[in-house]
Amino acid sequence: MGSTQGGKTITGWAARDSTGILSPYTYELRNTGPEDVYVKVICCGICHTDLHQAKNDLGMSKYPMVPGHEVVGEVVEVGSGVTKLRAGDIVGVGTIVGCCRNCRPCNSDIEQYCNKKIWSYNDVYTDGKPTQGGFAEALVVDQKFAVKIPEGMAPEQAAPLLCAGVTVYSPLNHFGLKQSGLRGGILGLGGVGHMGVKIAKAMGHHVTVISSSDKKRVEALDHLGADAYLVSSDTTSMQQAADSLDYIIDTVPVFHPLEPYLSLLKLDGKLILMGVINAPLQFVSPMVMLGRKSITGSFIGSMKETEEMLEFCKEKGVTSMIEVVKMEYINTAFERLEKNDVRYRFVVDIAGSSLVQ
Amino acid sequence: MGSTQGGKTITGWAARDSTGILSPYTYELRNTGPEDVYVKVICCGICHTDLHQAKNDLGMSKYPMVPGHEVVGEVVEVGSGVTKLRAGDIVGVGTIVGCCRNCRPCNSDIEQYCNKKIWSYNDVYTDGKPTQGGFAEALVVDQKFAVKIPEGMAPEQAAPLLCAGVTVYSPLNHFGLKQSGLRGGILGLGGVGHMGVKIAKAMGHHVTVISSSDKKRVEALDHLGADAYLVSSDTTSMQQAADSLDYIIDTVPVFHPLEPYLSLLKLDGKLILMGVINAPLQFVSPMVMLGRKSITGSFIGSMKETEEMLEFCKEKGVTSMIEVVKMEYINTAFERLEKNDVRYRFVVDIAGSSLVQ
Repeated sequence: MGSTQGGKTITGWAARDSTGILSPYTYELRNTGPEDVYVKVICCGICHTDLHQAKNDLGMSKYPMVPGHEVVGEVVEVGSGVTKLRAGDIVGVGTIVGCCRNCRPCNSDIEQYCNKKIWSYNDVYTDGKPTQGGFAEALVVDQKFAVKIPEGMAPEQAAPLLCAGVTVYSPLNHFGLKQSGLRGGILGLGGVGHMGVKIAKAMGHHVTVISSSDKKRVEALDHLGADAYLVSSDTTSMQQAADSLDYIIDTVPVFHPLEPYLSLLKLDGKLILMGVINAPLQFVSPMVMLGRKSITGSFIGSMKETEEMLEFCKEKGVTSMIEVVKMEYINTAFERLEKNDVRYRFVVDIAGSSLVQ
Repeated sequence: MGSTQGGKTITGWAARDSTGILSPYTYELRNTGPEDVYVKVICCGICHTDLHQAKNDLGMSKYPMVPGHEVVGEVVEVGSGVTKLRAGDIVGVGTIVGCCRNCRPCNSDIEQYCNKKIWSYNDVYTDGKPTQGGFAEALVVDQKFAVKIPEGMAPEQAAPLLCAGVTVYSPLNHFGLKQSGLRGGILGLGGVGHMGVKIAKAMGHHVTVISSSDKKRVEALDHLGADAYLVSSDTTSMQQAADSLDYIIDTVPVFHPLEPYLSLLKLDGKLILMGVINAPLQFVSPMVMLGRKSITGSFIGSMKETEEMLEFCKEKGVTSMIEVVKMEYINTAFERLEKNDVRYRFVVDIAGSSLVQ
């Protein structure tokens, strides 16, 4: 790693345009400020959002962009005001690296809902410089946004928990759905969905995977440990399952009708949307009124919940199903992710890759 | 009142077909069973649902049908097993007169969600006979479904509380929205909406009435005591009010976009639907996810909540704005209600009317 007056010069892999193709990119990190930690990246998970951002699918991408927001690394240097971390600690960095610390969400430890939150990449930091993510040698992050990985948890196992894991843990926590014995549904079995099955099972829930086809039945039941599998086009099975679930975590990222899933919910059941879908979703009002059901959603999770979730996963032995790849494979991994050809999360072994080609 | 072997023969006003026109109808009430009370009707509110049922708008009407489910009357006779009521008591009867008493909702005192609930009219009672409502001389009802009207509350004031009142009280109660200081929105200022303003104000909320036009501004602010008035087509005011409400009670009974109202909600805010709308409602998922908002709804309220609500209204001096009419005026009242030409609820003075024309 080089060093300059402004900070350290490092290499990451950046997208340069909406092709979304990543290639080596050299840039400067800010100096490690009093509240910052300097983290040498060990590994970083690939989330669907990385793909969307790299390809400018949301129309807000700025290039060059180093994606990656499921980052695990080792603390190498800490600022003078850093109290909770020290060199040698293994930490995780997720979706957010800054917030205003002064609004209602910030004061309630749910800084993910702060209107001035700063994203780990494709955003601008308080110093006016672009933020860059985890597909890189290193990053500098405010200690608030670095969470200690519990001892004994493998970095590549921890990585997907930092976004996918907390994204499902947070609503179960917030909406009072953590107690054992509940019956949950997981709609869609991608990166977030598979974590949903794992975490819900670890909470002691009866978990039904709901899918549009029969293709993932064996996978869901035998490999992920779900209790039941429901094909949404199978009208008879759907009717038999009516009024049976306390919640459904809906990870489907494209338009889909909500009625079939609302009808699976019990009185007071919750349909929790996780997919950013720009096409309007539809439902008829009696479907929610007559069972006092809720259509709701949530957005990643707080740092506090991330800590709790990591401890929970360690305690319960929750592991994610991952495919570890090297940095030079990332563009292929993006292509495969686009086709949902991964079980269930790619994690890039950054420390074991040569970033400079 | 006559008497026969089966029960007492009385007169009510019934619709005979989908014109929805009511006229005198003579029928027999069941004998007052051990758990029943025989109630001489004093007055009965007119709800929009009465209109829909009388005209077969929901396609499920059976004739002759005596509508009316905001009934206040005097107990004249009690069954041998009746403990909580006695002759002379003034009681209210609402939307439901029976339930299975054995399901999860029944066991949780939220019998309005029992799948075997029996409606006060246009339904079939356990004896196989049609149920008939409150636009009648008298009715016989199981004591569970008769609630004592607090002393000092005028019958005509109590009537609209039995449906419209509890319909808004129940979700505020259930969703944890009773504490003072909350900021609420009431969308639509009809019978339910006006009770929403009154009850929310009595809870100590800051209440904004949201309407499609400016027409009801003076009414809302000066007569009903709302704190603010928002015209939904006024983009500037709507933007200024963004992110400001803890809940919105949405009483609009026809299709309307949800986004403008979701955007008024704060983090964790709730859009509570009260209108049975058969056309699908629409929203985009980021609108709920990024503020952890909920689209939900509820359906009347329980007998327990009805009791609580009546006590609350008495204690806080909540009154409803009503227009008291005689029975012979009911068809005109129905016509005016259809055009929303009422401030805000018609109550039929049954005891003061001649039912037999």
